Amino acid sequence: MAMVCLSDFEAYAKKYLPKIAWDYFAAGADDCTTRDENILAYKRIRFRPRVLRDVSVMDTGTKILGSEISFPVGIAPTGFHQLAWPDGEKSTARAARAMNTCYIASTYSTCTLEEISAAAPGGLRWFQLYIHRNRAASQQLVRRAEALGFRGLVLTADLPYTGKRRDDVRNGFRLPPHMKVKNLEGAFEVCKMSPLDPSVTWNDIYWLRSLTRLPIIIKGILTREDAELAVRHGVQGIIVSNHGGRQLDEGPATIDALVEVVEAVRGRVEVYVDGGIRKGSDVLKALALGAKCVFIGRPALWGLAYKGEEGLQDVLRILQDEFRLSMALAGCASVSEIGQHLVQLSKL
Amino acid sequence: MAMVCLSDFEAYAKKYLPKIAWDYFAAGADDCTTRDENILAYKRIRFRPRVLRDVSVMDTGTKILGSEISFPVGIAPTGFHQLAWPDGEKSTARAARAMNTCYIASTYSTCTLEEISAAAPGGLRWFQLYIHRNRAASQQLVRRAEALGFRGLVLTADLPYTGKRRDDVRNGFRLPPHMKVKNLEGAFEVCKMSPLDPSVTWNDIYWLRSLTRLPIIIKGILTREDAELAVRHGVQGIIVSNHGGRQLDEGPATIDALVEVVEAVRGRVEVYVDGGIRKGSDVLKALALGAKCVFIGRPALWGLAYKGEEGLQDVLRILQDEFRLSMALAGCASVSEIGQHLVQLSKL
Amino acid sequence: MAMVCLSDFEAYAKKYLPKIAWDYFAAGADDCTTRDENILAYKRIRFRPRVLRDVSVMDTGTKILGSEISFPVGIAPTGFHQLAWPDGEKSTARAARAMNTCYIASTYSTCTLEEISAAAPGGLRWFQLYIHRNRAASQQLVRRAEALGFRGLVLTADLPYTGKRRDDVRNGFRLPPHMKVKNLEGAFEVCKMSPLDPSVTWNDIYWLRSLTRLPIIIKGILTREDAELAVRHGVQGIIVSNHGGRQLDEGPATIDALVEVVEAVRGRVEVYVDGGIRKGSDVLKALALGAKCVFIGRPALWGLAYKGEEGLQDVLRILQDEFRLSMALAGCASVSEIGQHLVQLSKL
Amino acid sequence: MAMVCLSDFEAYAKKYLPKIAWDYFAAGADDCTTRDENILAYKRIRFRPRVLRDVSVMDTGTKILGSEISFPVGIAPTGFHQLAWPDGEKSTARAARAMNTCYIASTYSTCTLEEISAAAPGGLRWFQLYIHRNRAASQQLVRRAEALGFRGLVLTADLPYTGKRRDDVRNGFRLPPHMKVKNLEGAFEVCKMSPLDPSVTWNDIYWLRSLTRLPIIIKGILTREDAELAVRHGVQGIIVSNHGGRQLDEGPATIDALVEVVEAVRGRVEVYVDGGIRKGSDVLKALALGAKCVFIGRPALWGLAYKGEEGLQDVLRILQDEFRLSMALAGCASVSEIGQHLVQLSKL
Repeated sequence: MAMVCLSDFEAYAKKYLPKIAWDYFAAGADDCTTRDENILAYKRIRFRPRVLRDVSVMDTGTKILGSEISFPVGIAPTGFHQLAWPDGEKSTARAARAMNTCYIASTYSTCTLEEISAAAPGGLRWFQLYIHRNRAASQQLVRRAEALGFRGLVLTADLPYTGKRRDDVRNGFRLPPHMKVKNLEGAFEVCKMSPLDPSVTWNDIYWLRSLTRLPIIIKGILTREDAELAVRHGVQGIIVSNHGGRQLDEGPATIDALVEVVEAVRGRVEVYVDGGIRKGSDVLKALALGAKCVFIGRPALWGLAYKGEEGLQDVLRILQDEFRLSMALAGCASVSEIGQHLVQLSKL
Repeated sequence: MAMVCLSDFEAYAKKYLPKIAWDYFAAGADDCTTRDENILAYKRIRFRPRVLRDVSVMDTGTKILGSEISFPVGIAPTGFHQLAWPDGEKSTARAARAMNTCYIASTYSTCTLEEISAAAPGGLRWFQLYIHRNRAASQQLVRRAEALGFRGLVLTADLPYTGKRRDDVRNGFRLPPHMKVKNLEGAFEVCKMSPLDPSVTWNDIYWLRSLTRLPIIIKGILTREDAELAVRHGVQGIIVSNHGGRQLDEGPATIDALVEVVEAVRGRVEVYVDGGIRKGSDVLKALALGAKCVFIGRPALWGLAYKGEEGLQDVLRILQDEFRLSMALAGCASVSEIGQHLVQLSKL
Repeated sequence: MAMVCLSDFEAYAKKYLPKIAWDYFAAGADDCTTRDENILAYKRIRFRPRVLRDVSVMDTGTKILGSEISFPVGIAPTGFHQLAWPDGEKSTARAARAMNTCYIASTYSTCTLEEISAAAPGGLRWFQLYIHRNRAASQQLVRRAEALGFRGLVLTADLPYTGKRRDDVRNGFRLPPHMKVKNLEGAFEVCKMSPLDPSVTWNDIYWLRSLTRLPIIIKGILTREDAELAVRHGVQGIIVSNHGGRQLDEGPATIDALVEVVEAVRGRVEVYVDGGIRKGSDVLKALALGAKCVFIGRPALWGLAYKGEEGLQDVLRILQDEFRLSMALAGCASVSEIGQHLVQLSKL
Repeated sequence: MAMVCLSDFEAYAKKYLPKIAWDYFAAGADDCTTRDENILAYKRIRFRPRVLRDVSVMDTGTKILGSEISFPVGIAPTGFHQLAWPDGEKSTARAARAMNTCYIASTYSTCTLEEISAAAPGGLRWFQLYIHRNRAASQQLVRRAEALGFRGLVLTADLPYTGKRRDDVRNGFRLPPHMKVKNLEGAFEVCKMSPLDPSVTWNDIYWLRSLTRLPIIIKGILTREDAELAVRHGVQGIIVSNHGGRQLDEGPATIDALVEVVEAVRGRVEVYVDGGIRKGSDVLKALALGAKCVFIGRPALWGLAYKGEEGLQDVLRILQDEFRLSMALAGCASVSEIGQHLVQLSKL
C-alpha cells in the first residue's frame, strides 16, 4: 500500500488500531460538527496563485519564538501515544527531532517528560500543561519541564471540563492497565474529582508567569476578545485551537477563527493554529492568513500507528514536500513571501 | 444500548413504537422541509466560546413568568402521550416535576387535567388550549385548568386547520379505541365539524383575558408583525413555534424566527422557542439569541417511549447536563451570563 | 395506493407509462439543471405566516383576463396527451372544465381543436401556437381557435429550435404511428424542414394582432428586458416559462425570473408562471411574488396517465385543497389578501 | 451506444482505456477539488435568455489572433495522445483541421512537430512550450515550430514543478516503452533533473520574444495581477487555465478567474480559457464572460480514445452543434451578439 498522502495513513490507522483507540483519537464532541468543519473550512479557501516567479531555490524554514524549524508544521499536544505505538511519545520526540521541527509534549503523555527528553536530546520541544486543583502538582511539572530543556509552556485554556465525546462514553474509554499517565503519577491520590481546575481565570497566567522564565503560549483561543486578553496578560504566543473539535461542538473552524485572532493581535505575539491540517496546501493557507506555524494532532497519531517514529517522519515529510510544492506553484520561494494576497476567502 | 444522547432515544422510539404512532409523532407537513429545517438551522449557528472564566460553580436555573425552574428546558404541548407510554401524560407530569421544570399539558391529552394534576401535585404546569367553536367548552377548560393550579395558558395560534401530514393520511391515523381525548369528552357531541374555530382573531385574546387571571402565552408566532400584535393584545409570553413543522411547510426554522421576534418584542414580554432542540448546546444557542426557555416536543415523546417517566427524566437530564457543559465550555457559569456575543449567525 | 400528493402521481406515471413516453414528458435539456431548478427554487423561498386572522370562509377563486376560475392553477400547453391516456386532450378539456379552470391547448395536440371544444363545451380554454414558416397555416389555426370559442392565444416564444433532450435522442423519440399532430395535418406537406420559423421577431406580434381580437399571451419570457418589450408590443399577458427546462438549460428557475418580470411589468399586464409547481404552497408562493395564476405541465400528464379525466381532476383537486390550506395557514382567506409580505426570498 | 453528449465519450474512455492512461488523463492535483470545480463553476452561472430575435441564420465562426475558425472551441495542449489512440497527435491535427479550428500541439506530444504538420497541412496550429533548463533546446523547438507554419507560441507558466497527482504516484505512471516524447529526443541527455526550469520569470518573455516573430500566448494566468504583467510584457494572448486542476489544487475555477482577468486586461490582448468545458452552453458562458475562444483538454482525449480522428471530430461537432443551439435559444445569431448581458453570475 503506497503512502502517498495523509489520508492513506488515516485509512491505515482506522484499519489496524484497536477500535477503542481509534475512536478515542477520532472523537469529536457531540455531533462532531466542529471536528469536521476544521477540515471543510480549508476547502472553502481558494488560492490566488502567481506565476513566473523564480522558484528554483525553495526554502520552507522558519522560526517560532526564535527557534529555527525546517518547515512550519509542529506536533500538537495529544495524549496517550502508547495507544498508537508501543514506544509512545519517545517515538514522537525522535521523529520531530529528525525532521527538525517542534513537538509539544502533552501532560497526558504515557511517557514521562524525562523519558521524552532522553529519547531525543536537543530536540525542540514545548510542554503542554493544564492548571490543576493541586497547584503544587502543576508547579512541579513546570519546573521539571524547564529543567529538562523544554523551550515553551503551552497552557490549554479550553478544557475546564472534558467535552462530551459520545463514542468514548459508549466504549467506556479508559487507558489499558499497562499504560499510565506517568507525568501525574502520585500527584493526585487525594483527589477523586477531575484534577483539572475549572476555576482558572486569566489571573492564573500571572501565577504561571511567576513560576518560570519560559515563554507562555496559550492554546484554545477562538475570539478576538480572548486574543486581546491573552496579549494583555503577557503571553508570548497563541494557538488558535478548538481542541480538534473535541470540546465545544459547533464553535468555529480554527482556520476561520485564525483570521479574527490575527487581526486582533496585530503582530504583538506569534499566532499558531491547529485542527484540520491534512495537506501541505492547508499549511500554506494558514500561513497566508497569518499563522506563524501550524500543529498537527491526529495525523501525527496516524503516522505513529503506521510505523512509530518512522511513520511519523513519513507524515511530516509528506507535509513538507506538499507544502514546498504548493509554495512553488503559488509563486513563493520562501516563507517570507507568503501573504494574504495568496488566498481568497469564500464569500460564503 | 447506552442512551448517550437524544438521538439514541429517537432510534429506540422508531424501533419500538407502533409504526402508526411513530409516524404520527414524526410527521411534518407536506415535504417535511420545515420540520427538518428546525434542526438544520441550529447547526448553522456558530458559537464564539470564551475561555479562562471561572466555571467551577455552575448554575443552570432560571425563571419563567416568575416561576423557578432548574434549567431552561420545558415540555412542549404534544398530544396523545398514551401512544408512547401507557400512563401517558401522568408520566410526563411526574418526570417534569422530578426535574423541576415546566410541563405544558395539551388539550389533546389522553389523561384529564385532573389526572395530570393528581399525578404530580405541586409541579409547574401550563395548559395549552385551542379556541373551539363551542366557546363554552373552551371556557370550561380554562376554568378547570385555573382551579387545578395550572400557572399559565398557552393559546395555540397556528392551527385554524390541521396541516397536511402525508403519512397520517396514508395510515388513516386515528387514536386506538381504548384511548380518548378525555379533556373534551362530552363537549362536542353536537359538533360534527372540527371543533377548532378558524374564525379566531386577535380580539379573542381579550375574550380569553376576561375568563382568567392566568398569564396568557401565545404559541405559533413567527414574524415581527405578529409579535408586535401579541404584545399589544396583552399576552405575557410568546412561544416562537411552527408546530414542529406540522402546519405550514416551508415557513422559517424557529431559531431563525426567534431572532426577528426577540428584536420586535424588545423585552416587553418573555419569548420562548420550540422545535429542533436536540442537544444542550441548542438550548444555549436559543438563550443566546434571546429565548428565556425552550420547550421540547418529540424528544419528550421518545423519552416516554423508552421508559415512561424514567425515560423522560433521562432525556431531560441529558439535556441539562449537556446544557451545563456547553455553558461552561462557552465560558458562562450562570444563565445570566448568556448573551448574543456567544454566537455568530451564519452569513447564510 | 393512496394518491395523497402530486409525487404519488409522478411515481405512478413513471411506473406505468411506456418508457419512451415517460422519458419524453420528463425530459429536460442537456443536464436537466433548469428542469430541476424549477422545483428547487421554490424550496428556497420561505413563508412568513401570519396567525389569528379569520380564515373560516375561504375563497380560492380568481380571474384571469376577466374570466373567473375556481383557483389559480391552469393547465399549461403540453403536447401529445394521447401518449398519457387514450382520449388525450379531450380528457384534459373535460377535467379542466369540471374543476372550473383554464386549459391551454397545445398546437401539438393529438386531438383537433374541434374535438377538444366538442369534448367540453363552455370550458375556459386558450390556444397555444407557434408561428410557422407557412404563415397561412398559423393564420388558419388562429381563426379556427377563435371560431371555436378559445378565449386567448398563447404565443410560445422560446422555441426557435427544439432543445437538446438527450433521452429523446437516445430513444429516437417519435409519435407512435396511430397518433397524429392532428391540428397540423395537411398544412406542412411542402415543408421538409421544421415547420417552426426561427426568424420570428417582436414585429410578428403585430401580424398576430392583425389576425384576431383574442388577447395575446406571450409564453417564455425570463428577463425584464423581454418583459418590457412584450408590454410595449401590446400583449395582454406574459407566462414566465422556461418550457419546463426543455429548451435552454441553465437559464433561471421560473419562480426566480418571475420576481424580475413582475417588477418590470409594474401591473400593466397580467403575469403567469409555469414550471416546478408540485404543491399547493408553491402556488401560494407564486401568487405572493406577483403571478396572477400558475400553469402545470407534467403534473397534468401524470394525472392523465393515472386515470384520464378523473386522474387529472384528482391532481387539480389536491392542488386546490393544498393551496386553500396553505392560504389559511399563512393567514389569507382570499386570493386578494396574498402579497409579497408572505414570503422571504432566500438570501442565497 | 449513442454518442449524444460529451459524457458519453467520457464513459467510453473510462471503460476502454488502460487504467493507467485513464488515470493519467483524469488526474487532478491532491484532492482534485479544482479539477471538479472547473466543471461545477459553470453550473453556477445562469443564462438570461432573450426571445423573439431572428435566429434563422446562425454563424458560429470567429477569429483568434486574426485566424478564422468555424467555432470558438480549440484543442488545448495535452500530452501523450498515443496513450489514447495509436496515431496520436496526427489524428488530433487532422480532426482539428477537418473542423476548421485551432489545435495547440504540446511539447509532450508523442509525434514530432514535423509529423503533426505533415498529417494535416494548412491546419491552424499553435505550439505549446515550456522553457527548459537547456535554453538551446527550447530555442530549437521554437524555430522548428515557426518553420513548420505554427502560428502561435503558447508558453505554459504554471508548471515550474509537476503537481502532485496521487493516482499517478500510486500507479507509478510512465510512458509505455514504445512511446516517446519525440520532440525532445536527444535534447536532454545531459540532464537528469526535470528538464523544466523553475527559475523562469517574466523577463524570459523578452528572451522568447527575441527568438520569434510568432505571437506569444501565455497559459496559466489566474489573477488580475498576472494578467496585467502579461500585457505589460507584450504577450498577444492569455489562456486562463489551471492546467485542468493538475497543478495547484484549490485555486479558482477557470471560469471564475476569467471574469477577473478579462476585467484587468480591458481588451488589450485576447483572452481564452480552458478547463471544465463539457457542453456547448459552457462555451457560450465563457464567451459571454469575455473569452474569445475556449480550449478543450480531456474531452479531446475522450474523442481520440473513442475513434481517433473521427471520434475527436464527433466531439467537436457536438460542441459546435450545442453551442449553435445555445446561441439561438439565448437569442444570438452570431458570436458578435454574445455579451455579458446573457449571464447572471451566481450571488454565491
